[in-house]
Amino acid sequence: MNYDPPIAHILLAMRSVGITDTDNFSLADAQTILDQAGRFAAERIAPLNWIGDQNPARLENGMVITPPGWKETYQDWCAAGWNSLTGPPQFDGQGLPMVLAVACTELWNAASISFALCPLLTAGAIEAIAAHASDDLKQHYLPKLVSGEWTGTMNLTEPQSGSDLSQLRCKARRNDDGTYSITGNKIYITYGDHECASNIVHLVLARLDDAPEGTRGISLFLVPKYLPEGARNDLRCHSLEHKLGIHASPTCAMIYGDNGSAKGWLIGEENRGLACMFTMMNNARLLVGVQGVALAERATQAAISFAKERRQGRLSGVTDQSSAIIDHPDVKRMLLEMRAKTSAARALCMATAAAMDASAIATSDGEKQRYSAQASLLTPLAKSYATDIAVEVTSAAIQVYGGMGFIEETGVAQYYRDARILPIYEGTNGIQAIDLVTRKLMLDDGATFANELATCGNALVDFTDEDTTKQTIAIIVELAGVLNNKQNSAVALAAATPFLRAVAATIAGGYLAKSAIAARGTALENESQVNARFFIGVEIPTAISAAKASVAGAQLVLGAEFA
Amino acid sequence: MNYDPPIAHILLAMRSVGITDTDNFSLADAQTILDQAGRFAAERIAPLNWIGDQNPARLENGMVITPPGWKETYQDWCAAGWNSLTGPPQFDGQGLPMVLAVACTELWNAASISFALCPLLTAGAIEAIAAHASDDLKQHYLPKLVSGEWTGTMNLTEPQSGSDLSQLRCKARRNDDGTYSITGNKIYITYGDHECASNIVHLVLARLDDAPEGTRGISLFLVPKYLPEGARNDLRCHSLEHKLGIHASPTCAMIYGDNGSAKGWLIGEENRGLACMFTMMNNARLLVGVQGVALAERATQAAISFAKERRQGRLSGVTDQSSAIIDHPDVKRMLLEMRAKTSAARALCMATAAAMDASAIATSDGEKQRYSAQASLLTPLAKSYATDIAVEVTSAAIQVYGGMGFIEETGVAQYYRDARILPIYEGTNGIQAIDLVTRKLMLDDGATFANELATCGNALVDFTDEDTTKQTIAIIVELAGVLNNKQNSAVALAAATPFLRAVAATIAGGYLAKSAIAARGTALENESQVNARFFIGVEIPTAISAAKASVAGAQLVLGAEFA
Repeated sequence: MNYDPPIAHILLAMRSVGITDTDNFSLADAQTILDQAGRFAAERIAPLNWIGDQNPARLENGMVITPPGWKETYQDWCAAGWNSLTGPPQFDGQGLPMVLAVACTELWNAASISFALCPLLTAGAIEAIAAHASDDLKQHYLPKLVSGEWTGTMNLTEPQSGSDLSQLRCKARRNDDGTYSITGNKIYITYGDHECASNIVHLVLARLDDAPEGTRGISLFLVPKYLPEGARNDLRCHSLEHKLGIHASPTCAMIYGDNGSAKGWLIGEENRGLACMFTMMNNARLLVGVQGVALAERATQAAISFAKERRQGRLSGVTDQSSAIIDHPDVKRMLLEMRAKTSAARALCMATAAAMDASAIATSDGEKQRYSAQASLLTPLAKSYATDIAVEVTSAAIQVYGGMGFIEETGVAQYYRDARILPIYEGTNGIQAIDLVTRKLMLDDGATFANELATCGNALVDFTDEDTTKQTIAIIVELAGVLNNKQNSAVALAAATPFLRAVAATIAGGYLAKSAIAARGTALENESQVNARFFIGVEIPTAISAAKASVAGAQLVLGAEFA
Repeated sequence: MNYDPPIAHILLAMRSVGITDTDNFSLADAQTILDQAGRFAAERIAPLNWIGDQNPARLENGMVITPPGWKETYQDWCAAGWNSLTGPPQFDGQGLPMVLAVACTELWNAASISFALCPLLTAGAIEAIAAHASDDLKQHYLPKLVSGEWTGTMNLTEPQSGSDLSQLRCKARRNDDGTYSITGNKIYITYGDHECASNIVHLVLARLDDAPEGTRGISLFLVPKYLPEGARNDLRCHSLEHKLGIHASPTCAMIYGDNGSAKGWLIGEENRGLACMFTMMNNARLLVGVQGVALAERATQAAISFAKERRQGRLSGVTDQSSAIIDHPDVKRMLLEMRAKTSAARALCMATAAAMDASAIATSDGEKQRYSAQASLLTPLAKSYATDIAVEVTSAAIQVYGGMGFIEETGVAQYYRDARILPIYEGTNGIQAIDLVTRKLMLDDGATFANELATCGNALVDFTDEDTTKQTIAIIVELAGVLNNKQNSAVALAAATPFLRAVAATIAGGYLAKSAIAARGTALENESQVNARFFIGVEIPTAISAAKASVAGAQLVLGAEFA
C-alpha cells in the first residue's frame, strides 16, 4: 500500500492557520524539509508498516526485539537528523517550531504509527528533562536523546491506576548519594524495551514513603536502562501485551527493582511529579491527535485509490461496461466525508501547534499567556476530534473496500486496528471532554473560548452564509452557558463528549473556511472549497444537533441505572 | 467473558412488535424454548468464542479443521434439535415462526458469531432448496440439512464480482443425464469446507455457455461435496482468508472442476438463478442484522460489568475512595447509548420478523402482500441499522474498557473485529440504502412506507410529545419526497445512507416507545422508559439532522473530484 505524502495539503493547513514567513521560518524552507521527510516516510518507513504488523515486537531472553528492518531504519532515520528536529538547540537540537513538528509527525505516523511512536515518546522525555531536570542530568541525557541514540519512555500506568494517577503505588526511597531507589511495576510502557537504541531513559512516576496521599505525593524520576558508569540498572520488561493494533510497537509490563531496586534521579521537586508531567501533556496530546490525522489520511488515500480501480455495477447512462466504484454516489459520499474530516482534523492540529509556537516566541507576558491559553483550549479538541475521526475514517475505508477490506492482506484493516488506541491513550477522549467543560471553557474567565469562537465565526462568515453562521455560534454559546453553570456540573459531564464534538467541528470548520480562501488560485482550490462547504453544510449541523439533544437529554443519562 | 442471555428483553421486543398468543404460538412456549437455547448458548457456545478467535480454522492436507471443541459442540447442538427449529415440517423441521428464529439467532450469535454463521448459511440453503428445487433434490437433501447433519453454503462472490453479480464467470455445462458440469472459482465462501458435518451442500451461481449476458444469464446449482453415491465431487477449498475478525469461521476460496468439473443439479429454472437467490435474501439480510444485535448486546453486557468493577477517580461529594467508573457521567452516557441502540436494533429486527410471519400465515392475498411489503421495507433498515450500531457499540465497549479494551485478552477487541464484517456482507449497507431509496420507498405506490410511518408516529405520540413527533415525521416525509423525485435520482443515491439511518432510527424509536408502554409494571419498566426517552430525545434528532444536511449537501458529493 503506497503512501503519497500530502505536502501541499500540510502547507495549506499551515497557511490557513496564519503561518507566514518570519525571520526564523519560511514556508519555502518548510516545504524543503517536508519534501525530504515525506521521501523518507514513503520510501523507508511505509514499507515496514505491514511487516511490523505481521511480525510483532517479541520478548526473547528478557530482551525486546523489534520487527525486521526496524532497527536499521530507526538508526538511518536518526542519522538523517529527523529525531533532532524540535530538540533544544543548546543540546544539538534544531529547535524548529511546533507546526513543523506536527507536519513531520503526520508523515512519520502515516507511514507507520508503530514506528513513529518511539520518537514521539522520546520527544516527551526530552521536553520534561529540558524543563525540569538538573543541569547534570540535562548534560548527560539530552544530547543523546536529541540525536535519537537513546530513546525515552513515560511510566505512568499501573494495573490499578490508569486515568486516575492518585492510586499510584510505585515506590521511591532516598539514597545517601542523592539518588533514589525505585521499586514497583508499571504497565502499558510503549517501547519500554527494544534493541534499536543503546540506552533507554525511563521517566517514572513514583511515591516517596513519606509523601502525602493522592496526586500531591507523586514524584518524577529518571531511571535509565544503563547507568552512567555502564552497568545495567535493575529494571526489565517482563512481558509484552498482545494488542488489537500497533503490533510492532512493544507495549511493555516493566518491573523496577526485581533484585532490590532500580537507581533513579529526581526530576523537578519531590512530590511535584505531576506538574512535571503536565508540562509535556499538551504536546503529547496534540501529537496523538496528529497520529489520528495521519491514519485518516493514509486510509483515505487507500480508499480513493481502491475506488478508482475497482469496477462494480453500471450507473444509469453507462451501458457498455461496469463503473469504477468511485463514480457511485454512495462511495463518493464516503470518500468526501473521509477527506473533509481528515482536513478538518489536520487544520485543528495545526492551529493548536501555531498557538503553541506563538506563545513560545511572544514578546510580552500578556501575549504569551493569551496564546498559551488558546493552545490549552485547542488541545483537547485536536486530540479528541482527530482521534475520533481516525476511527471513523479508517472504518469507512474498510467499507469502501467491501469484503476485501475485511481481509488483512489488503492493509486497511491494520489502519482500523491501529487507530482504535488513539481515543484511549494520552487521556481518553472522555477525559479530554471533561477537561474542556470543567477547565478550558473558563480559561481567562471565558475570554479564550469567546475569542476562538469569534475568530471562527468571522472565518465562516467570510466563506458562507452569515445567518447560519450566527445561529451556529449562538447555539454553541448557549450550550456552553448551560454547561458552565455550576448548578449543572453533572449535566456538563454527561454531555461533555457530544459538546466537545460540536465545538471541535465548528472551530475546525472555521479553519477549513480559511483553507478554502487561502487555496484560491492553487491546485487545491476546488478540493478545499468542496471540503469546506461539505463540512460546514453536513458535519457541523449534525454535530451541533447531537450536542443540543445530548444537553437536553443529560438528566436521562444521570438517572440511568444498569442492572 | 460471561454471557447472560437477555431472554426478558427479547420477549419484551416480541410483545412490543405485537406478538401475542395464537393457536400455534404462545409467549410462554417461546420463553421455555429461549430459556433452553440461552442455556446452551451461554454454557456450551460462549466459552468457545475466544478459543475460536485465537485458534482460527485452518487448512490441512486440503481439509478445513475448525477450532478445538467446535465439532463436538456443533454436533451436540444439532442433536438437541436447535438446527431444525425453523425448517419445513415435511422435512422434519419444527416450522417455528421467524420471530423465534430471530430470538434464537441472537442467542447463538451473541455466544459466538463464528460458530453461529454455519447454521445461518444452512438455513439459507434450506430455504432456497425448499422453495425452488425438484422434489428429488428436496427428498435427498432437506432432511439432513434440517437436522444439521449436513451444512449448506452460498457461492456467489468471485474475485471480479462482489456486489455486482452481473460479472460472474463461473461456468455450467449441461450433461446428458440432466446434471450439470460446474467449473470456476469462488471466494469468500463461509464454511466452504469443515469437518463438523458429513457433507456440505454448496449452492453455486454459474453461467451456462449459451446464457444471456448480465444478471439474466445466471443459474443456481446444488453442488454437494459428496455425491449421492458417496464419491467425492470435484471441488475443494484451496485457501482460507486471513481476516480482521470471525477467525473461527473458515472463509474459503473454492475451486470447482480442478480435475475436469464438479457435478451439479439445477435449482429452479435455467437463467433464473438470481430470482432463487432473492427468495432467501430478505431472511439472510434480517439474520445478519440480528448478528449485529447479538454483538451489540454482548459488548454492552461486558462494558456494564467492567464499568461496575473498575474504580478510577473520585466523584465530587465522594472523598473516601475512588468511584466505580459506571458512576462517571461520561461512562454512563456511553453505556446508555449502547443499551438504547441495542434495544432499538433488536426491536427493528423483531418487527421485520413479525411482518414475515404475518405474511406467511395471512389468509388473504391482500394481507399477505401487505405484510410481505412491510417486511421488504423493514429488511434493509434492520440490516443496516443493526450492523452499523454493532460497530459503534462494540467500539464504545472498547472505550469503556480504556487501555484494557485494546488488549486482546480482555475479549472486547474481538467483538469489535468480528462486528466489522456485518455492514459489508449480505449486501453492503450502502446497497441496503440504495435498495431503500430506489425500491422500498415506492412499494405499493408508497403506501407501505406511509403505513409504517403512521404506525410509528402513533406509537411516538402515545409516549412522547406530539408536536416533536409530528415535526419528525414531517421531515422524514419531506426528505422521502425529495429523494423519490425521479429528477433527483443521483441526489437520492448520494444521501441514501444518512436517510436510511434517519428512517431506521425513527421507526425503531416508535417500537421502543411501544416497548416502554408494554413494559409497564414489569421489571424492565424503568430501563425501557429510559432507553426510549433517550433514544427519542437524542438518537432520532441527531439522525434526522444528519439526513437533512446530507440531502442539502448531496450536490457537493456528486460534484466532488478526487485527485
